[in-house]
Amino acid sequence: MTASTRSSGASSPGGTRPEALLVGQSGGPTPVINSSLAGVIAGARGRIPAVLGLRHGIEGALADQVVSLTDLSEGDLAALRRTPAAALGSCRHKLAPPDVERVLDTFRRHNVRWFCYIGGNDSMDTCARLEGAARDAGYPLSVYGVPKTIDNDLVGTDHCPGYGSAARYWATTTQEVTRDLAAMRSYDRVLIMECAGRNAGWLTAATALYRRDERDGPHVLLLPEMIFDQGSFLAQVEHTLARVGYCVVAVAETLRDASGAYVAQSSAGVDRFGHPIVTAVAETLAQLVTAELGVKARANKPGTLQRTSMGYVSAVDQDEAFGAGHEAARQLAAGASGEMVGLVRREPGAYACDFGSVPLTEVANSERRLPPSFVHGGAGGAMEITAAFREYALPLLGPAPDPHFQLA
Amino acid sequence: MTASTRSSGASSPGGTRPEALLVGQSGGPTPVINSSLAGVIAGARGRIPAVLGLRHGIEGALADQVVSLTDLSEGDLAALRRTPAAALGSCRHKLAPPDVERVLDTFRRHNVRWFCYIGGNDSMDTCARLEGAARDAGYPLSVYGVPKTIDNDLVGTDHCPGYGSAARYWATTTQEVTRDLAAMRSYDRVLIMECAGRNAGWLTAATALYRRDERDGPHVLLLPEMIFDQGSFLAQVEHTLARVGYCVVAVAETLRDASGAYVAQSSAGVDRFGHPIVTAVAETLAQLVTAELGVKARANKPGTLQRTSMGYVSAVDQDEAFGAGHEAARQLAAGASGEMVGLVRREPGAYACDFGSVPLTEVANSERRLPPSFVHGGAGGAMEITAAFREYALPLLGPAPDPHFQLA
Repeated sequence: MTASTRSSGASSPGGTRPEALLVGQSGGPTPVINSSLAGVIAGARGRIPAVLGLRHGIEGALADQVVSLTDLSEGDLAALRRTPAAALGSCRHKLAPPDVERVLDTFRRHNVRWFCYIGGNDSMDTCARLEGAARDAGYPLSVYGVPKTIDNDLVGTDHCPGYGSAARYWATTTQEVTRDLAAMRSYDRVLIMECAGRNAGWLTAATALYRRDERDGPHVLLLPEMIFDQGSFLAQVEHTLARVGYCVVAVAETLRDASGAYVAQSSAGVDRFGHPIVTAVAETLAQLVTAELGVKARANKPGTLQRTSMGYVSAVDQDEAFGAGHEAARQLAAGASGEMVGLVRREPGAYACDFGSVPLTEVANSERRLPPSFVHGGAGGAMEITAAFREYALPLLGPAPDPHFQLA
Repeated sequence: MTASTRSSGASSPGGTRPEALLVGQSGGPTPVINSSLAGVIAGARGRIPAVLGLRHGIEGALADQVVSLTDLSEGDLAALRRTPAAALGSCRHKLAPPDVERVLDTFRRHNVRWFCYIGGNDSMDTCARLEGAARDAGYPLSVYGVPKTIDNDLVGTDHCPGYGSAARYWATTTQEVTRDLAAMRSYDRVLIMECAGRNAGWLTAATALYRRDERDGPHVLLLPEMIFDQGSFLAQVEHTLARVGYCVVAVAETLRDASGAYVAQSSAGVDRFGHPIVTAVAETLAQLVTAELGVKARANKPGTLQRTSMGYVSAVDQDEAFGAGHEAARQLAAGASGEMVGLVRREPGAYACDFGSVPLTEVANSERRLPPSFVHGGAGGAMEITAAFREYALPLLGPAPDPHFQLA
C-alpha cells in the first residue's frame, strides 16, 4: 500500500500554512513504532489542523525533509500498524547547539506548533533541548514524547512500547530452539542466544518467560547486571548437560567480566552517543564451551530480527503503542508540553494500563536496569528470574502461544 | 497438550502384538516435520492396526525406545501440526553394519511390518539399507521415506517439505531488515545475513523472493555454488552503498574461496557424516567490510531459528508436509516399498502438486544444487535470481504477506 503523501512545502505554495503537529521517529526501530505513529496521526485528527512527518527524525528537520500525513486513509493507518521498522525513517542524531536554530527554522517554515517525538532516552533529551530553545527564542512550541524501545530501559513508565513484542520474540523462540535441542539431543548440545538490551537485562530475562518446567531453556542466564565468571559459567553448562542433556544459554550482548571488559572477542569502539559497539559474544562463548568442555556448541545471533520481526508481535504491545501515540497528540492539543507519555499499571486485578506523563528531563539520559526483585542469584552464581518478574512481564506479551503437542 | 502415550511394549505384555507401522524423524528439524508425522498417523488410520513412534529416529531402535501413537486424538494431531522441532526426537545416526541386526530385532519385538522415515538423503540411505537387510534376513518389512529438509537439496522431488517455510522465513525477514536499514540509513549501513543450506543455495536465493524493486535487499547474494572473490564482493557492497545508501548481503554459511577453503574464520572440523562444521561467515564478512570500506557492518545469524520459527510457516508447505506423510502411510498399506514420496508439480496452470514416488537408492546420498537456470551472474561477479526461480519458488511460500505501508 502506497500512501499519497506530498511535501508539506508543496501543499500550499506561497500561502499561509495551517498550524501543524510534526511527528518524528528516532533510535532503533521496534515492531510497534509504526503503531505509535499511527496513534499520533489518529489522535491529532479533529484536534489539530495538519499533521506533518519528519523523515529520519531530527535529521529531517536539518535537511527540511517534511511530508504531509494529514490525508492518510484509515486503510493506510491500519497498514502502518503492521509495517516493520520506522516508516518515516529514523536516526541517532545527537542534537548539537548549532543544530537547534536550524531545526527551529524548519519548524517555523512549516508553521509547526506541536512536536511529537517517538523514541528512547536520547530522543527525550532532544525533545527537552528543543523545548528549552524554543522558549528562549519566544517561539510558541509544545513538545511531547512517546516512549519507544525494545530494551525497556526508560524511567518514568511501567514499561516501554516495543518491549512486549521483543520479549515475546525471545520467550517464544527460546522455547522453539529448546525443542530443537531436545530433539537433536547428543548432536547439538549447547546453544548460545545473543540478546540486545544495552546495559539492562530486560530482554535476556524475557527468554525465560514461557519456560514451563526446569527442563525448558534458558538454563543459563547471563545478564548485563552481573559480572561474568568463566568458571561459574562453564560449571553451570556442565551441570545442565548432566541434568538435562542439552543446554540453552541466553547472553546479553553487553556482558562484562570483573575487570569491566566486554566478554565479546571484538569491541569496535563507541558509537556517537558513547555507547560501546560490541559484536559476537555468543560466538565467543560457543567457542569457549567447545574448547573447555569438548561439546558442540552453536551461537544464534538474530540481531536486527529481534526488533523487526512482525511474526512475533504482541497484540497488547501493538495496542499500547498506538494508545501512547494517541495520548501524546491529545495532550499536545490540550496544551500540555515538556512531558513523555508514561504507562501506568492499574493495580490490583487483571492487567490494564492507563496513560500518565513524566517530565522529559526525568527520562532524558537515564536508564532503568532490572530491579533486584526481578532476578535472584542461585547456587554457583546462576541467575534466575523471579515470580515478580513473570507477573510484571507476562501480560505485556499478550495471549500465550498455542500449547504444543507433547509426548508423555 | 500432552498426549497419552505409552510404551508399545507395555501395551500388550506377553500377548501377540498387532502388526504395526513404525514412524521416525531424522536429521535437522523443520517447521513442518511434525505436520508430516501427523500425516503418517492420519494416513495409517483404518489401514494399519497399530502406529508406533521411534524416539530419536533410528537411535530409538537401537535403544528400544518405541511409543504407541495409535490412540492420539484429532486434537493431538492438530496440535502436532503446529509444534516446532521434531516431536519424537531426531538424530544424525549413520547406520553401521552391526547396528542393522539390532534394529531388526527391535522391529521384530514390536511386530513392525511397515517402516516410515521422515528425513533427508542420509535418512533415505538408512531406509534403503534396512530394506535390503530385512530382505536378506527373510523378514517381511516394507519401507517408505518422506522427504524433509529446509535445504531443498533432495533429488527426485520437485521440492522438499520444510523448504517453503524456511524460504518464507528468509524472504520475509530479509524485507523486514531491509526496512530497518532504510530507516537507519547512515547508522547501520551494511547487514550480512547468514543462511543455512549445506552445499546448495536454495535458502540463500530465497532471501530475494519478496524483493519488489532494486532498492530492496538482498543487494549481494553469496551462493555456495559460486567462488567467493573478496575484491568483487567489496566492489558490489561499495556500488550498492553509492546507489542505495545501505546494503543487505545474504551469504551461505558454506561459502568457499577459489582454493576451496571456507570463507568463515573458524572451521571446527567435520561432523560424523563428513559434512564440515563451519561457523560465523557473516561475522567474518562484517569485519572485512568495516576494515576495508570503513563503514559499520552488522552480522545476523539466526541459526537454529530458521528451522524452528513457527511465526513464518508457509501454509502450503504445512499442508504438503502432512500430505506427503499421509501418502507414505497409504503406499505402505497398499504394499509399496523401497521408495520415497516425491512432490510432482502439475503443469501448466495454477500451482498444484501431486504425490509421486522415487526409489530410495536414487535419493540416498545425492544432493541437488541450484540449477543454472535459477541464477545468473551479472556485472562484476554479482549473482542474481531469475524469473524462472521466482516462478518455481514463490508458490511454495503460500500467500504473500500483508502489503506494508509505504511513504511515496
